[in-house]
Amino acid sequence: MTADAAQYLGAGLAAMGIGLASIGVGLIFAFFLQGALRNPAAAASQQGNLILGFAVAEALGIFAFLVSLILLFVV
Amino acid sequence: MTADAAQYLGAGLAAMGIGLASIGVGLIFAFFLQGALRNPAAAASQQGNLILGFAVAEALGIFAFLVSLILLFVV
Amino acid sequence: MTADAAQYLGAGLAAMGIGLASIGVGLIFAFFLQGALRNPAAAASQQGNLILGFAVAEALGIFAFLVSLILLFVV
Amino acid sequence: MTADAAQYLGAGLAAMGIGLASIGVGLIFAFFLQGALRNPAAAASQQGNLILGFAVAEALGIFAFLVSLILLFVV
Amino acid sequence: MTADAAQYLGAGLAAMGIGLASIGVGLIFAFFLQGALRNPAAAASQQGNLILGFAVAEALGIFAFLVSLILLFVV
Repeated sequence: MTADAAQYLGAGLAAMGIGLASIGVGLIFAFFLQGALRNPAAAASQQGNLILGFAVAEALGIFAFLVSLILLFVV
Repeated sequence: MTADAAQYLGAGLAAMGIGLASIGVGLIFAFFLQGALRNPAAAASQQGNLILGFAVAEALGIFAFLVSLILLFVV
Repeated sequence: MTADAAQYLGAGLAAMGIGLASIGVGLIFAFFLQGALRNPAAAASQQGNLILGFAVAEALGIFAFLVSLILLFVV
Repeated sequence: MTADAAQYLGAGLAAMGIGLASIGVGLIFAFFLQGALRNPAAAASQQGNLILGFAVAEALGIFAFLVSLILLFVV
Repeated sequence: MTADAAQYLGAGLAAMGIGLASIGVGLIFAFFLQGALRNPAAAASQQGNLILGFAVAEALGIFAFLVSLILLFVV
């Protein structure tokens, strides 16, 4: 296997990590929405925690995306 | 590994993505049905959201299906 | 890699699909039992749906089993 | 790839199956403990079912462990 | 495939185990927080169990991390 071929395979594997991070982000919004529909009056007060949790989970997906891009264009 | 062989392997890997998308679609219907059986009077009012969520989740599976087909017949 | 070797690897990968189908079948019985223990009087009335859901989920595992057998003995 | 190398890779893959079986065993104890903490008076009466479920789930992990050992030392 | 190349691939596979251990640690804190928000008065009394569970789950991730490091620098 040439180094070029390994870069393409690595980028594809990293893209699996991007998709897995979507599960984490989805869990955050899913449980927030379940709670917000049960007690809408408290939803606004937890909007900050929602954005914080979403950001740190999304960041991991973006890191995997960066690894993909680095494998494709930088290395 | 020849380019032909890699296409077949790639199509098989993409088919794993199709199956994983089925988990997402299944979650949407599972939770809708759980809620609809608990409160059948509200089920009709959420039919639109069900179809919307189903469509966007199914779309991701169809995208993976497209990748499979492209690998098999187009590229 | 020879064609024979690829058949053996493919059969092993298909067997992973058999095992994954077991998760689906397990979910069906798990949630049925949870509900039946909560409301035993209604368990008999849902036996038909249980068998139907079990059959279609088990079928997917059997399809993966068939792919394994075909890879091993037919192709 | 030599036959020796394939044995080592196969043993590693089988070890992934051992780890996955741990999820099943963990689910059994997790739900038992959740129920036992909610209704401690009934915990003793379900100890037998707990051990039975634990045994059959653990057995699958041990089967995967056996496959690993056979690949490493027998075949 | 040379032995060097196999070490790098093995380290990457071990890193998948590190990420999977994060699911276990996350489950522990997720369920603790859900319970603590429902009954804050009891949260302090369960802090010890939380740290114990977190430690043993985190340890498995660190073991996978060690395997990665050994593959990269020791072997």
